[in-house]
Amino acid sequence: MSLLTVGTVAFDAIETPFGKTDKIVGGAATYIAWSASFFSKKVNIVSVIGDDFDMNELALLRERGVDTEGIEIKAGKKSFFWSGKYHLDMNSRDTLITDLNVLLEFNPVIPDSYKESDILLLGNIDPHLQMQVIEQLPKRPKLVVMDTMNFWMTDAFIGKLKEVIQKIDVLAVNDAEARQLSGEYSLVKAAKKIMGMGPKYLIIKKGEHGALLFHSNEVFFAPALPLEEVFDPTGAGDTFAGGFCGYLDKSRDISFDNMKRAIIYGSAMASFCVEKFGTERIKNLTHKDIEDRVKDFIDLVQFDITLEDEE
Amino acid sequence: MSLLTVGTVAFDAIETPFGKTDKIVGGAATYIAWSASFFSKKVNIVSVIGDDFDMNELALLRERGVDTEGIEIKAGKKSFFWSGKYHLDMNSRDTLITDLNVLLEFNPVIPDSYKESDILLLGNIDPHLQMQVIEQLPKRPKLVVMDTMNFWMTDAFIGKLKEVIQKIDVLAVNDAEARQLSGEYSLVKAAKKIMGMGPKYLIIKKGEHGALLFHSNEVFFAPALPLEEVFDPTGAGDTFAGGFCGYLDKSRDISFDNMKRAIIYGSAMASFCVEKFGTERIKNLTHKDIEDRVKDFIDLVQFDITLEDEE
Repeated sequence: MSLLTVGTVAFDAIETPFGKTDKIVGGAATYIAWSASFFSKKVNIVSVIGDDFDMNELALLRERGVDTEGIEIKAGKKSFFWSGKYHLDMNSRDTLITDLNVLLEFNPVIPDSYKESDILLLGNIDPHLQMQVIEQLPKRPKLVVMDTMNFWMTDAFIGKLKEVIQKIDVLAVNDAEARQLSGEYSLVKAAKKIMGMGPKYLIIKKGEHGALLFHSNEVFFAPALPLEEVFDPTGAGDTFAGGFCGYLDKSRDISFDNMKRAIIYGSAMASFCVEKFGTERIKNLTHKDIEDRVKDFIDLVQFDITLEDEE
Repeated sequence: MSLLTVGTVAFDAIETPFGKTDKIVGGAATYIAWSASFFSKKVNIVSVIGDDFDMNELALLRERGVDTEGIEIKAGKKSFFWSGKYHLDMNSRDTLITDLNVLLEFNPVIPDSYKESDILLLGNIDPHLQMQVIEQLPKRPKLVVMDTMNFWMTDAFIGKLKEVIQKIDVLAVNDAEARQLSGEYSLVKAAKKIMGMGPKYLIIKKGEHGALLFHSNEVFFAPALPLEEVFDPTGAGDTFAGGFCGYLDKSRDISFDNMKRAIIYGSAMASFCVEKFGTERIKNLTHKDIEDRVKDFIDLVQFDITLEDEE
């Protein structure tokens, strides 16, 4: 089984109340690939970087079974760079710098060796590029998952975004984005409207408040683990999506019940991501760490009620 | 088994985006008693009202096994009246009117027939009054639970509030209040600090985001049920506390594991409360309704993961 993802591979500079970094490696596809690599046998990345990128970072990914053939390296160009500063509550941030650089001329090309991938995860990127990826695949993957954000819900992109949404199986957005996309404040109503736009499954990410998975008339709730400190939230959503898709890929089961498990694994991966800057924590995980963390999630929500009719 | 509660029995006038009410019956002890009455054999209320109160409401409570002997009726005086208007998101509200009326001269007196109550639930009220109730009990109840709010965390009350907190087993506050009381943003750190002030258990209520139960180094998370509409949040926290304590009282078990179940039952009761104005919905519940709703909570969070060591 294999997972194909498209998204940014980039540099970030991050400031949080706990400290700040110089340029470190980031980008949605980076987080997705690291996270999924703990589950998927083969993760195929499509992205673009400049020749200023730290090529050793790609070697580290390859050691984990990530295929980087689809990462185009543009000679003489600079990699995408984002810099941001988080507020005290860590739920909001200001973007300080966005240098699109190579992203301005990104034309995703899917290598032939990627074309039979079982699961496609469209990372958060311009929906025009997400559509180009879908259109290059000779046959539809078993599951198409899309992560996106409010930036693409504006006039210049919303039309294409809705076209892509029609073609996917699972959409992942946060609660504010679900409200914006649907025009509904109630998340239950928002979910119904958004599933009416195409996807059979909707994941609503609520950060420290967990995540909801909607499907037809069913809903599943996965909590976030209460943490002593959230050190750096950057990449948590991508890490979640990578763990979710990686788990589905590994277990070869895209049923609703297995998606529940996948959401717990994705949440566990995201809970590690925020413990250190950038990819530092997820780079150093063991499978034992992950299983222990999933056990924490089980303990967190497990209760034992025997229902009885009392009237 | 029996439950003793102290709190307001009052009139409310409520405006939400869905409509507004004239004076309807409200008050913390009213919601607590209605909610607990589905579990406890006997709920003992200590409160104060004016002779303007709708005495038929007390009769309705008595029909459900609620003892109203401890509700003092002040002749020629008016009942406590609160009026508020909720904002569109239902998470914030403006208080329009607070007429303390009889509450200004409330001197809680515990009838002898209440003094052997097994569980004491101190509803959200001036901590000086909460302390007076504790001091009138000849022996300590098996469990003392306290609900409070940010209003009592100000200079005039915080000293007494902390004295009461020293004497209780379970404190229930919302997330903002836990942060205010502890001076910690992280809820995990806040919980440790607050448990250091006395209570062995801390419930942090997060409204639409569920509730956390902390005890020693353990934590349990109960979700809120995603609802199509929250019609009127008034009394949801009291209804939660009443269901929580009522369930513990009925099941005669105050272990951490049983508190998890009690939090699910409390959350189920609160999810009904918000469906209509005031006490309207919880007045008309059946045990079957409650069991069905608890089943919804089980379905919402239930997943099945078999852990394995993979390395």
